[in-house]
Amino acid sequence: MIRFESDYLEGAHPAVLRRLWDANTEQTPGYGEDAYCEEARALIRELCGLPEAAVHFLVGGTQVNRTVISAALRPHQGVVAADTGHIAVHETGAVEAGGHKVLTLPSHDGKLRAADVEALCAAHWADASFEHMVQPGMVYISNSTEIGTVYSRGELEDLYAVCRARGLPLYIDGARLGCALAAEGCGYTLAEMARLCDVFTIGGTKQGALFGEALVISHPALQKDFRYFIKQNGGMLAKGRLLGLQFLALLEDGLYDRISRQEVALALRLRDGLRERGWTFLVDSPTNQQFPILPDRLLSELKKDFGFSFWQSMGDGSSAVRFCTSWATTPEQVDALLAAIPHR
Amino acid sequence: MIRFESDYLEGAHPAVLRRLWDANTEQTPGYGEDAYCEEARALIRELCGLPEAAVHFLVGGTQVNRTVISAALRPHQGVVAADTGHIAVHETGAVEAGGHKVLTLPSHDGKLRAADVEALCAAHWADASFEHMVQPGMVYISNSTEIGTVYSRGELEDLYAVCRARGLPLYIDGARLGCALAAEGCGYTLAEMARLCDVFTIGGTKQGALFGEALVISHPALQKDFRYFIKQNGGMLAKGRLLGLQFLALLEDGLYDRISRQEVALALRLRDGLRERGWTFLVDSPTNQQFPILPDRLLSELKKDFGFSFWQSMGDGSSAVRFCTSWATTPEQVDALLAAIPHR
Amino acid sequence: MIRFESDYLEGAHPAVLRRLWDANTEQTPGYGEDAYCEEARALIRELCGLPEAAVHFLVGGTQVNRTVISAALRPHQGVVAADTGHIAVHETGAVEAGGHKVLTLPSHDGKLRAADVEALCAAHWADASFEHMVQPGMVYISNSTEIGTVYSRGELEDLYAVCRARGLPLYIDGARLGCALAAEGCGYTLAEMARLCDVFTIGGTKQGALFGEALVISHPALQKDFRYFIKQNGGMLAKGRLLGLQFLALLEDGLYDRISRQEVALALRLRDGLRERGWTFLVDSPTNQQFPILPDRLLSELKKDFGFSFWQSMGDGSSAVRFCTSWATTPEQVDALLAAIPHR
Amino acid sequence: MIRFESDYLEGAHPAVLRRLWDANTEQTPGYGEDAYCEEARALIRELCGLPEAAVHFLVGGTQVNRTVISAALRPHQGVVAADTGHIAVHETGAVEAGGHKVLTLPSHDGKLRAADVEALCAAHWADASFEHMVQPGMVYISNSTEIGTVYSRGELEDLYAVCRARGLPLYIDGARLGCALAAEGCGYTLAEMARLCDVFTIGGTKQGALFGEALVISHPALQKDFRYFIKQNGGMLAKGRLLGLQFLALLEDGLYDRISRQEVALALRLRDGLRERGWTFLVDSPTNQQFPILPDRLLSELKKDFGFSFWQSMGDGSSAVRFCTSWATTPEQVDALLAAIPHR
Repeated sequence: MIRFESDYLEGAHPAVLRRLWDANTEQTPGYGEDAYCEEARALIRELCGLPEAAVHFLVGGTQVNRTVISAALRPHQGVVAADTGHIAVHETGAVEAGGHKVLTLPSHDGKLRAADVEALCAAHWADASFEHMVQPGMVYISNSTEIGTVYSRGELEDLYAVCRARGLPLYIDGARLGCALAAEGCGYTLAEMARLCDVFTIGGTKQGALFGEALVISHPALQKDFRYFIKQNGGMLAKGRLLGLQFLALLEDGLYDRISRQEVALALRLRDGLRERGWTFLVDSPTNQQFPILPDRLLSELKKDFGFSFWQSMGDGSSAVRFCTSWATTPEQVDALLAAIPHR
Repeated sequence: MIRFESDYLEGAHPAVLRRLWDANTEQTPGYGEDAYCEEARALIRELCGLPEAAVHFLVGGTQVNRTVISAALRPHQGVVAADTGHIAVHETGAVEAGGHKVLTLPSHDGKLRAADVEALCAAHWADASFEHMVQPGMVYISNSTEIGTVYSRGELEDLYAVCRARGLPLYIDGARLGCALAAEGCGYTLAEMARLCDVFTIGGTKQGALFGEALVISHPALQKDFRYFIKQNGGMLAKGRLLGLQFLALLEDGLYDRISRQEVALALRLRDGLRERGWTFLVDSPTNQQFPILPDRLLSELKKDFGFSFWQSMGDGSSAVRFCTSWATTPEQVDALLAAIPHR
Repeated sequence: MIRFESDYLEGAHPAVLRRLWDANTEQTPGYGEDAYCEEARALIRELCGLPEAAVHFLVGGTQVNRTVISAALRPHQGVVAADTGHIAVHETGAVEAGGHKVLTLPSHDGKLRAADVEALCAAHWADASFEHMVQPGMVYISNSTEIGTVYSRGELEDLYAVCRARGLPLYIDGARLGCALAAEGCGYTLAEMARLCDVFTIGGTKQGALFGEALVISHPALQKDFRYFIKQNGGMLAKGRLLGLQFLALLEDGLYDRISRQEVALALRLRDGLRERGWTFLVDSPTNQQFPILPDRLLSELKKDFGFSFWQSMGDGSSAVRFCTSWATTPEQVDALLAAIPHR
Repeated sequence: MIRFESDYLEGAHPAVLRRLWDANTEQTPGYGEDAYCEEARALIRELCGLPEAAVHFLVGGTQVNRTVISAALRPHQGVVAADTGHIAVHETGAVEAGGHKVLTLPSHDGKLRAADVEALCAAHWADASFEHMVQPGMVYISNSTEIGTVYSRGELEDLYAVCRARGLPLYIDGARLGCALAAEGCGYTLAEMARLCDVFTIGGTKQGALFGEALVISHPALQKDFRYFIKQNGGMLAKGRLLGLQFLALLEDGLYDRISRQEVALALRLRDGLRERGWTFLVDSPTNQQFPILPDRLLSELKKDFGFSFWQSMGDGSSAVRFCTSWATTPEQVDALLAAIPHR
């Protein structure tokens, strides 16, 4: 059985795990106030070219999303997101549990369009009943998106221009940020993207860590008192150094990029092999998640030997499914999968 | 520098870490639906003598507290706790952020008294304005407590009798449950305690794990839909097996008990050494946290070589401080500390 | 200036106001525990044919919606509503502020379809990630709807059948219930409708009262502890008898029905006059809200002498606007309006 | 039966009710955007000497408290109050339902002391674990208090000085503000008090209105977007003019002061009569609530003819009870009560 259903099926990259092992018996302060976390924070500020940014480490994605969003919004405000956005669909209403509506806009291949955000804001403030409606208070996007697509530099610039004009902080959920930056055709670096938003995460879980998201806050108002929010939301790890150590291992010598590039390369190898065999895709993804459309009969056969996630029925006897690569995926695994898929 | 300020200054017991290492490249489903978690759940049910209990794994204590409490209460209800309780003092209002008041009662050496809970309930329902007040909806205790004390069997029986009579689920925060069960004079086993409450945790972080709390829910109504609550509260770890593997390592051959007994033994060695030297304590603790009262001048000297936590000034030139032992503490470390403390 | 922009532009029907005046100096207990409220409750139970129902009086619609919904749902649940539903659009996120998502489904002339609710539920429980999504926990409809339409008996029966099968309480927001029951072609009585849901309101504000919504809860589980929720949500009026007195005035001799029938009759007189003049409507409404589509140029003229609400631009130089009738509307006012509108 | 148990047992002062009657058939915009509300707002700004203040009208006290407090605080902050404060005891956890802890301090005759607030703040920021604790974010007091006492000018000045130094908005719940200003020995005017806080209410319900609290916000940051919060909290009355009209009736020619002075005068007549008879009081109240301590046997007799509220047992066969006067209380009622109470 070779599993491709998600990118969190294995543990951590060995270099990450070794780092935890090496420091294991050392004594350090708790709650992220140790020297490893400090070092990792400094490294991230440097890599992002944001010397004034606040950097925090949290355990998981839903946790960091609910923490950032509830810290940023006042009670009458909502967060704008694509209707496919993780916070809109797959976090069991964590944003609402924090008191806020997710104001959804149509997804365009998983992405939010600047013009749609502008139109929403314009409509809100033009409405005679605006005080009876939730006020847009923040914009959330994921990059890469939930369906593997990546914002272009121009798309980010347009979105951020609208956000600044409307006074809305822009938050980028980077659970798969490494894959976005390593994507085929991505035209910007981490430091360049960092200047096109107010707060973002660098996801560890799906790019080589056991767990962990690094949160980078450049917007000064969002930095204030942030550790209180982490604690309140249950995100302050007692042995906080586990997060600092992992991000050091990933970032201090480029491992994060190498893992991300390899994840993407293997996913594109799969994509290209499927294309050669004549299969089409739900969406054109340049990252580590691929969504081919395959006959249900073939899928029934495949699932005896391979793991993948059902995505959606196409209603014609075929379905879109998801295949993900991770830090641990090998070329041989991809080739074994391709070997099991005939030409169309 | 030898540090005693808390019990989460080091990583995990080597056997725990090795377990993670050994399974590292294996592929398993995410979100705690893997075979390791299943095995750990079955083992915990067996150890607790609760074949019908639901068992879940969460990352940290504040997270599990807010999740359990918000799942158990209706909006008009509050959770009863000692005024020293962790949820009342040190979770940045996580319970309130979930919409609920913490109804505090006086602490008796860190413990809640059955008679006080009964009196609170009686007063609530006797009050003509009862609908204008928060209704008691659950009782929270920690065992061992925040100041190292342990509930006796009789105290638990009395408390649980009141809780059942009043229809209040009893929740035991077992962040240091191992130390409670290993405490000098604790007259009950895990399985015995499990029958004296409705829901409790077995804390991993402070007894040998990198992180993790096992949540055991025997009360059927609290079991319903619980995984939704974990996800909503940001507690569903993508690589959930990390929790199952750690609890397997701790519980399958008694390591958890051995660690706890060693933590307690070393803390009592410290206590006894201090007693011999004539020093007194803020509270009589039979577990891994000790709170001696020492002269401020001595403390200033000590802190050059030893870590400890300031607890409270006694107002007479002396202070109560906290010394904790952990899975990694050695007899040599304790003896080094004792050697640095003179007779009174 | 004659105003039709809403149905809350005047005070109360004189009979209602007189009732308040007559009891003004009498001394009664507060918070709705007076004899007038008791009498009004008994009367409502009788009129609804629900001898076991709990009846409460609250001040306003958003208040009663947030109170009912937060009392009914557990934290991981959301309330299903049409995307035009008042709670989804015009309550400034009050439901989300209470912690819950509004799960919107497409509006069919302002109404929710049973089949859509069933499909949502089926999809939720069939999804492998169901625990990562908000669970449907209640269904909300308004009758008459926000755009004046009315559920047929068959539509209510179908919806309630789905709700019962799926274990979802059905809540009917009856802010304009009188008009629904008085609507052209409505084939059921108050008592009949009362048996086709679990909880509903009888709106006072828009049918002759100064303010006030009577809440009727037939579902036993929703009745429990309900006054706590009213207090917590700021809905427990100190001089609660003001609500009981108003509902007595409205209901004890059929005034509520007479007002509602007159509101509807005058709105239909307007509708028919507009139809005769060749104008069309955004929606076919049989109640006191009418939404004709008129040329923007004509509307500019009209608004010098008449009040109405802008609803939506049709993009062709014409707009849909809302005209409402109230307890105070006269035939002469409607005729004056019609006289100002030419044939198409 | 003559009732003194609260100050909301009757309807409104006839002048208030007449005002509603006179405007009853007039058509005005809803939601407080009518000319009466505007006029009342301007009048209140003038009476308070706060030309830049925002003035809003809400229906009830719990509603206004939850709205103000949730608008003012960020999620990690709590509101400081005396442990006898209405928000701490008698609002069914409305503040907590909005996500915030009430940080209670000891009551001194119902009042909060500046020194206690300063000590709380100093302790918070001095604590090494401050981020694990709820941050003080606002101070709440009631004036007159829940037990009838009144802050002196010096007490308010001291409290406000601490609040400004610590950056905490000071909120005065003036549900009985008229009685505070009319109290024996109160050394300040409305306009003077208005400058000693950031936001306060002028209570209508207990001083002659049917219902209604006027909210005066001088702090600019608290003014922003406030109507959204009113709507979200269910406090935006559709026929909002009912509030403007009532406050006009109360304030435009000094009726509010006359009512308050009469309430206080009659309460003090009762107090003095009881004192003459040798009875003592739970607290020395200079306002419309009096708390004499009377033998339980006498109370059993009294309650056949008079209403009063049980307050607390003194444990010696006597109890403190509450007698309130309202706009409708007459000297004859007070004298009848006094006649029924013997000398001690």
